[in-house]
Amino acid sequence: MGSYKIAVLPGDGIGPEVVAEAVKVLSIVGKKFHHSFDLRYADFGGAAIDSSGVPFPPATQDVCMSSDAVLFGAVGGPKWDTLDPAIRPEKGLLALRKAAGAFANLRPAKLFSELADACYLRPDIVANGIDILVVRELIGDVYFGEPSGIEVRDGERVGFSNMIYAEHEIRRVAEVAFETAMKRGKRLCSVDKANVLAVSRLWREVVTEVAKGYPEVELSHMYVDNAAMQLVRNPAAFDVIVTGNLFGDILSDEAAAITGSIGMLPSASVGGANTPGLYEPVHGSAPDIAGQNLANPVATILSLAMLLRYSLNLSAEADAVEAAVAAVLAAGYRTGDIYRDGMKRVGCTEMGQLIADRV
Amino acid sequence: MGSYKIAVLPGDGIGPEVVAEAVKVLSIVGKKFHHSFDLRYADFGGAAIDSSGVPFPPATQDVCMSSDAVLFGAVGGPKWDTLDPAIRPEKGLLALRKAAGAFANLRPAKLFSELADACYLRPDIVANGIDILVVRELIGDVYFGEPSGIEVRDGERVGFSNMIYAEHEIRRVAEVAFETAMKRGKRLCSVDKANVLAVSRLWREVVTEVAKGYPEVELSHMYVDNAAMQLVRNPAAFDVIVTGNLFGDILSDEAAAITGSIGMLPSASVGGANTPGLYEPVHGSAPDIAGQNLANPVATILSLAMLLRYSLNLSAEADAVEAAVAAVLAAGYRTGDIYRDGMKRVGCTEMGQLIADRV
Ligand SMILES: CC(C)[C@H](C(=O)O)[C@@H](O)C(=O)O
Ligand SMILES: CC(C)[C@H](C(=O)O)[C@@H](O)C(=O)O
Repeated sequence: MGSYKIAVLPGDGIGPEVVAEAVKVLSIVGKKFHHSFDLRYADFGGAAIDSSGVPFPPATQDVCMSSDAVLFGAVGGPKWDTLDPAIRPEKGLLALRKAAGAFANLRPAKLFSELADACYLRPDIVANGIDILVVRELIGDVYFGEPSGIEVRDGERVGFSNMIYAEHEIRRVAEVAFETAMKRGKRLCSVDKANVLAVSRLWREVVTEVAKGYPEVELSHMYVDNAAMQLVRNPAAFDVIVTGNLFGDILSDEAAAITGSIGMLPSASVGGANTPGLYEPVHGSAPDIAGQNLANPVATILSLAMLLRYSLNLSAEADAVEAAVAAVLAAGYRTGDIYRDGMKRVGCTEMGQLIADRV
Repeated sequence: MGSYKIAVLPGDGIGPEVVAEAVKVLSIVGKKFHHSFDLRYADFGGAAIDSSGVPFPPATQDVCMSSDAVLFGAVGGPKWDTLDPAIRPEKGLLALRKAAGAFANLRPAKLFSELADACYLRPDIVANGIDILVVRELIGDVYFGEPSGIEVRDGERVGFSNMIYAEHEIRRVAEVAFETAMKRGKRLCSVDKANVLAVSRLWREVVTEVAKGYPEVELSHMYVDNAAMQLVRNPAAFDVIVTGNLFGDILSDEAAAITGSIGMLPSASVGGANTPGLYEPVHGSAPDIAGQNLANPVATILSLAMLLRYSLNLSAEADAVEAAVAAVLAAGYRTGDIYRDGMKRVGCTEMGQLIADRV
């Protein structure tokens, strides 16, 4: 019976289509559970560049910061690829994450049993399923490290970006990872490159210190190159992975790819004390299929479930959305990206409606 | 009918066993093709730490630098894991690469048709095989970038490592990659994170400039997170990949893992003008199976083939070694790591002998 403000940023490409389906589901949740959701749409990414010249305009920032959570679609597309990097859609995303203080990006890579045959790995490797949660630090590391730039030194250009972490940045994301591991399989693998990088040696030290507060969690450390291997060789060995922004970018995408159904994977970016959590599908803006009712809205709908669970503390509602997705899959409905012979092929809007009907 | 000096660094764990088999093959090559190989053994890695306190002693450096090429096994193991990072076995490897000026690391990830069922990917994904060559920059990037360290700032520890590339470092490795692509499928994919990192923007600029000299090569650019995905989704789409030291570390290991037979994969590190090329298997020192005649010597023997080809310009000899490996596989011989029902299981020394016999 609550009343909540949700900033809705459809963004570019298939963003608006998939967000529309999540909104359909949200309004059913509102009716069924007697909540009122105040949906506050705002321009973001390429759409915002077109309307106001920048990817994350102040008006959008105001809407986001005064909301309980932010739901967004995807940003970017060929139209904006040739712009100056400083005002490209991606910069808007980085600025939004930073403004929201969203230091912990939760990226589940789960193999839905109904979609096991979509998995890119050999069936015997994934007989035990895949259920990994990557906790990626999101507002530090070489993404934001200074100094950074391109300069002429000794007569030639030199490009540099500083991979840097302060103790408190590592500690807070490690705490989120340990807390999350406590609610799951109690195994946490911290990924770094401590055999080479000073920044990784501090990462490992601080994670090891935080571990003292979580004696029940089994902590291991793995080098990033080995982690990239083990995700392929034995993904079932992982429960929760915690790592920095750059390694997390790479490994969470690798883990997602392995499941073979990236159109199904949600994400949450949380952490700020009085700032909203951000919820978005893992897939991109897919300009090639935009506007054709071909996109899979499930990743966005599951992102909405994470929003209900983490930012609004509505776990029964989140469970209902997740159960509805599972029921629709079990009933054999598939968008094109996950279609197999013998299944029922549906478009983006039909998929959204089917899920909404089952909430 | 040449005479060559080869520095041999067996190293740690299974290093000595697999190197011994490569040496067996080399001596047959010497006899058959009437070359004399002066093998100059030296301590390296943990073995060198034990004998002289440092992983890459000056005596070893002298041996390497006065040789035509360096063949080595693997370094590291639990015995040295607790040492100060400054004198750990890995530091020796980095120092050797740097001393040799070996800026281009060539890492083939190939699926041997006889071992197709070892591949970790779904059979339909790899129906067209996998034959990728990763050209990894090896002596720059955040591996060696300064400033780097851990310091107290504003009352807390801060760790930092500088991801930095100068124009000439990018240019020379890009040239190697384009040259290599010309001899293969003429497709080159440059991997960076130019949507976020300044250092990657320079990388992309310089690679694009170098491309002008190779109009026959089809150049594409890919972000590292997407590359980590595409290696899983469609590895057959790649021919040559060129990337920086850190991204190359991760992606070359991911590509190797996908083939499922990391015990088969060689590598070459080349580039210095008057310095030796370095040749080593991709796998590590595997302390758990060391000394039990269980290791697969093929990766080291194929590294030897690369040594003959690239450093000594002996391509008939290199072909003979590669053909011998293929013949032994075709005859059904397998070490434990690649064993399948119905094949003939052999140990490390038998495998080496079988290959030597067929040269
Ligand atoms: C678009 C890009 C800046 C972004 C990132 O690297 O963080 C994306 O890859 C992601 O993972 O959300
Ligand atoms: C041992 C380590 C320093 C090394 C590296 O990261 O370069 C290894 O992973 C490799 O790829 O050869």
